[in-house]
Amino acid sequence: MIKVGIIGISGYSGFTAFELLLKHPGVRVTYISANNTTGAAEEIWPKLKGHTNLVCNKFDAQKAIEKCDVFILAVPHTVAMDLAPQLLSKPAKGGSLAVRQAGASGGKKVIDLSADYRLESAASFTKWYGTEHKDKTNLKNAVYGLPELYREKIKKANLVANPGCYPTAAILALAPLVSTKTDLIQSIIIDAKSGVSGAGRKVALGFMFSEVNENFKAYKVLNHQHTPEINQYLSKIAGNNVEVTFVPHLLPINRGIQETIYVQFKEKIKAENIHTIYKKFYKTEPFVRILPLGKQPEIKDVAYTNYCDIGVAANKNLAVITCTIDNLLKGASGQAVQNLNLMCNFKETEGLV
Amino acid sequence: MIKVGIIGISGYSGFTAFELLLKHPGVRVTYISANNTTGAAEEIWPKLKGHTNLVCNKFDAQKAIEKCDVFILAVPHTVAMDLAPQLLSKPAKGGSLAVRQAGASGGKKVIDLSADYRLESAASFTKWYGTEHKDKTNLKNAVYGLPELYREKIKKANLVANPGCYPTAAILALAPLVSTKTDLIQSIIIDAKSGVSGAGRKVALGFMFSEVNENFKAYKVLNHQHTPEINQYLSKIAGNNVEVTFVPHLLPINRGIQETIYVQFKEKIKAENIHTIYKKFYKTEPFVRILPLGKQPEIKDVAYTNYCDIGVAANKNLAVITCTIDNLLKGASGQAVQNLNLMCNFKETEGLV
Amino acid sequence: MIKVGIIGISGYSGFTAFELLLKHPGVRVTYISANNTTGAAEEIWPKLKGHTNLVCNKFDAQKAIEKCDVFILAVPHTVAMDLAPQLLSKPAKGGSLAVRQAGASGGKKVIDLSADYRLESAASFTKWYGTEHKDKTNLKNAVYGLPELYREKIKKANLVANPGCYPTAAILALAPLVSTKTDLIQSIIIDAKSGVSGAGRKVALGFMFSEVNENFKAYKVLNHQHTPEINQYLSKIAGNNVEVTFVPHLLPINRGIQETIYVQFKEKIKAENIHTIYKKFYKTEPFVRILPLGKQPEIKDVAYTNYCDIGVAANKNLAVITCTIDNLLKGASGQAVQNLNLMCNFKETEGLV
Amino acid sequence: MIKVGIIGISGYSGFTAFELLLKHPGVRVTYISANNTTGAAEEIWPKLKGHTNLVCNKFDAQKAIEKCDVFILAVPHTVAMDLAPQLLSKPAKGGSLAVRQAGASGGKKVIDLSADYRLESAASFTKWYGTEHKDKTNLKNAVYGLPELYREKIKKANLVANPGCYPTAAILALAPLVSTKTDLIQSIIIDAKSGVSGAGRKVALGFMFSEVNENFKAYKVLNHQHTPEINQYLSKIAGNNVEVTFVPHLLPINRGIQETIYVQFKEKIKAENIHTIYKKFYKTEPFVRILPLGKQPEIKDVAYTNYCDIGVAANKNLAVITCTIDNLLKGASGQAVQNLNLMCNFKETEGLV
Repeated sequence: MIKVGIIGISGYSGFTAFELLLKHPGVRVTYISANNTTGAAEEIWPKLKGHTNLVCNKFDAQKAIEKCDVFILAVPHTVAMDLAPQLLSKPAKGGSLAVRQAGASGGKKVIDLSADYRLESAASFTKWYGTEHKDKTNLKNAVYGLPELYREKIKKANLVANPGCYPTAAILALAPLVSTKTDLIQSIIIDAKSGVSGAGRKVALGFMFSEVNENFKAYKVLNHQHTPEINQYLSKIAGNNVEVTFVPHLLPINRGIQETIYVQFKEKIKAENIHTIYKKFYKTEPFVRILPLGKQPEIKDVAYTNYCDIGVAANKNLAVITCTIDNLLKGASGQAVQNLNLMCNFKETEGLV
Repeated sequence: MIKVGIIGISGYSGFTAFELLLKHPGVRVTYISANNTTGAAEEIWPKLKGHTNLVCNKFDAQKAIEKCDVFILAVPHTVAMDLAPQLLSKPAKGGSLAVRQAGASGGKKVIDLSADYRLESAASFTKWYGTEHKDKTNLKNAVYGLPELYREKIKKANLVANPGCYPTAAILALAPLVSTKTDLIQSIIIDAKSGVSGAGRKVALGFMFSEVNENFKAYKVLNHQHTPEINQYLSKIAGNNVEVTFVPHLLPINRGIQETIYVQFKEKIKAENIHTIYKKFYKTEPFVRILPLGKQPEIKDVAYTNYCDIGVAANKNLAVITCTIDNLLKGASGQAVQNLNLMCNFKETEGLV
Repeated sequence: MIKVGIIGISGYSGFTAFELLLKHPGVRVTYISANNTTGAAEEIWPKLKGHTNLVCNKFDAQKAIEKCDVFILAVPHTVAMDLAPQLLSKPAKGGSLAVRQAGASGGKKVIDLSADYRLESAASFTKWYGTEHKDKTNLKNAVYGLPELYREKIKKANLVANPGCYPTAAILALAPLVSTKTDLIQSIIIDAKSGVSGAGRKVALGFMFSEVNENFKAYKVLNHQHTPEINQYLSKIAGNNVEVTFVPHLLPINRGIQETIYVQFKEKIKAENIHTIYKKFYKTEPFVRILPLGKQPEIKDVAYTNYCDIGVAANKNLAVITCTIDNLLKGASGQAVQNLNLMCNFKETEGLV
Repeated sequence: MIKVGIIGISGYSGFTAFELLLKHPGVRVTYISANNTTGAAEEIWPKLKGHTNLVCNKFDAQKAIEKCDVFILAVPHTVAMDLAPQLLSKPAKGGSLAVRQAGASGGKKVIDLSADYRLESAASFTKWYGTEHKDKTNLKNAVYGLPELYREKIKKANLVANPGCYPTAAILALAPLVSTKTDLIQSIIIDAKSGVSGAGRKVALGFMFSEVNENFKAYKVLNHQHTPEINQYLSKIAGNNVEVTFVPHLLPINRGIQETIYVQFKEKIKAENIHTIYKKFYKTEPFVRILPLGKQPEIKDVAYTNYCDIGVAANKNLAVITCTIDNLLKGASGQAVQNLNLMCNFKETEGLV
């Protein structure tokens, strides 16, 4: 049994990771913490009543290290880069036997759900997140936790930067085109819509029921912090500089992201060809489903699952790719468990289907 | 034109009163204030863009008094009893000519949407609202602003205590029975459900979209502060002590209250007779609609209106009364305008239909 | 592996049973059918893409019997009583080896999610469902599938009448009081609220999004067909005639039932005592959770689970019991799987936690 | 008083027109009809109880013509072109005195909310609506009812083709750019999202609450029938051929459309300049509001109003225009009343603010 600690249990992604791991046959959650909310886990989250006796305390690095092999950091941006070095730097004592037997590289392992280790450039981090990066050492070694693209690296990583929810959908939806047709692409526009849990559980007027319900709006137009994350990884995949237009919107639903992506080509394309590229690219992937031509994915079919569903359409020079994920699962904690499975040599779908 | 000031424009009921009065042909809104949110009204509430040039400042009693004949207080409980005496005690200078011409009694007039002047007993106020009552003088003279029951008193009142949202529905739904059959009633149970705007615009975890949406729960079971308000006025109507059981629930909708009320009688009753009592009781009321026997009111038919819809059913010793209102209109600001119309000698439905 | 057939896969409860059983480690779904919707299951329900290769056809009793040990009937009321006799009457050929090895009694087994076998009296069935009962033979032997009350009978049953969604919550919420304090109870009022999936997937104006969203209403007041089901089983538990008042309401959410139940006693009661009775009554139950005194259950904590959460409050002569379930799980297909587990000698919680 | 008939009162747009006109000071609704739903209007629409004594019958052209000066057709596509000629061809008898006094041109007038008279080309109509156009005579003379662009023509029109909901938002959002910068525009992509009432009140699985709620999807991708309508009018405004990419999505809300529109230019542009163009273009329009730079419109600020709110952003060669309307008001019946005001010489905002 791998012993896992979850830091930041009071938010939605920490809770969702906790809920998943309580059912994971190869994992025991041995430590949970949160900044402001302490007490029995089943009192903090009545949904878990009967499933756990764990007690949530304020974070204590020493205790956490003693009790766990792997950590999931579900803390706000800029906090993770304080915690990760504490957890990773300790003398590994070889890590737990279980982790080594699982074939992993030994030492503590961290999966960070925040944005702190996603951008390779500390300067870019400062620009978009408004503060200096404090852990440039680990930043260099962090692996981007998108298994469909970085599976082998994730298996050997000690620090995984779990992708943002919008980037997960955008990169999965664009990778097949960007990797095979980069020279023919003229522009990419991502019109993204997210359910409210994507904003986390922070208490703010803009996420109150009466403000969001029966409402819809674009926000942070051309200015969202997930833009550089999308650009960075699409550029790597393309092998040259890719810059997307990204406009997010707030959907009056609890969970789910839908993105409609407009890819303009320099020449005419055919929907059938595009569709074939996608089918081939994701042929063996357990969590990416390409819909039949003519069908568009719906959020309800991926909600409460780790799937990413993709639909393809095209006309003249334009491909329209539609994509859906559950922002708390494939867009956050489900993907974290998928990464944990890879890092600890479990079956990749364990605890997720 | 009656000059009206609205104190507390940043909450839903203050905003709703503002929106109604901007369209009221006999009223000019001449003063608005809020505690934390200041600036141009159309920036605070983009919905009003193009409808007003007013600027919202922190409350200033002197300015308010200079500019207004009538005040609507849309401030939190326990704040109103600080403000009302300031507004009422000033030398009336006879009140504005317009108010006098409108046939009103002269002097400044206050309609308070908070709970501060609803309970006649200062001790009861302290018990339910957790603080001493600071304005016992005006408390004595305040008139309960339920026009269907206290129309004549409201016309002459200087201080009107606008009813709570739950009590408005409960008292209107029960008045016909309690006033005519009090000796035969054995028990009254009110199962009440309210949309989220009923909680005001305060920012709290429990009213966040992700906590309320796709959810439903009872809260403050047998312990809600509207219980004594309901009991006090039903007792007056009955002419003896009435104590109801009251259980509120939180509905995942923006606006609207539905109450299902169970009245147990000491003897058998007939639905037709009950129905007749209701039809008669509210025969001339412009804002109370009794549905045909066999029909139940729906929130959607009263949302964005000042109506109270009532349905009647019965079996053996039990009458089941169902009732719907819009909590922000008949349950708050619509009723405030109805009261203002009475106090200023306008047509009672002016600005409301 | 137990081979299970699901009849009526195009509705929500059939789909939910299918989804649960695809993950059940001891079960293989070997047959699915529907009346109007045929074709590959993953086309009918894109959510299942990648999980099944089954094809849905019109019901064919012969094929179904050949392929399955156990049937889940998720068909409309009055249809099940046509199908069940066909499935049960065939020479059992001893049933499948697996079923026998699982310790079950041999022969085909049927779990019926419709109302057809819930009411013991054929006359009562006719009164509430508007048609003659066509299968009085099996009606006599059907076992009511509420495991918390009839666990041992269910284990041996060939035909289980899966309880209605409202009755499941109502009976679980009332059994502790009715079984221990029946002589002291004066009246019972059940104010019930259900999410829209409780109405099934039938296409009707009243369940269209624009009619239900931002709306709430009581319906079938004092006249809902679940009333006799509740009365029948509470009377059995009480050992004498119990008649409840039952008023259902339509909640603008997808899933979940909440009931607030008012039990009037002939004498004063104490919340602590009532709470103790509930804790004791459900002490060993895996799917019933009694909340701490002062807490009320919320639908979000049981949604997508098989739990029934119960809260207790009391004042003077009145107990207020609040109860939540997921109508598609504990209120339908989850409970069906719980029954299947009992009938096939699996662990009762298999596939459900 | 202008006498108005509404044909198709059982749908949302017919109902909304009815509700608006009951409050319009210059109008009397004298005739209502519907195809399947007949009876007292207040029984069909309990929300109107107390507001009308009209009775709804099946359409009878003779009666309609006798009773009305102006007709609002709120019938399905392909039905309107059957009815309009009947209503328009009758000897006008000079039209009602009131209409003439109002300065209108005499004769019966028709405002058609369907798509039947929007496309100038009968061939295009056939392509997108699947049937021959039956009234090519009136098709030639119909005026497109977008007052911001065709005000003067509308004033003199006998037959107004009320714009589609998506086109209303799209054309208003694009007219300032297309009319002034057409040579510099490279491509236009419209990502549109509509609340469910946009689909009308037809009963279909895809619009059931449980299918739409907590869901979101693109539909009719690159293939929606509003595309040619948008192209036709933008081309007229531009003075050359404009072809947009149009992708609609279904939002889980009752009312409202939001469109995010991506306009790619051949050269760099500045947000400030774009913003100035919009402010100027709509300077005197009563129902179009240009938000300050940096702000995006929200559906909640236009819901239940006749406004169209527009926000502007830009980066490099790209302008992002966001736009919101209430699909039942500015997108249908509110705009119909605005047109009626123009056609009958009322103040353009009468009954709408």
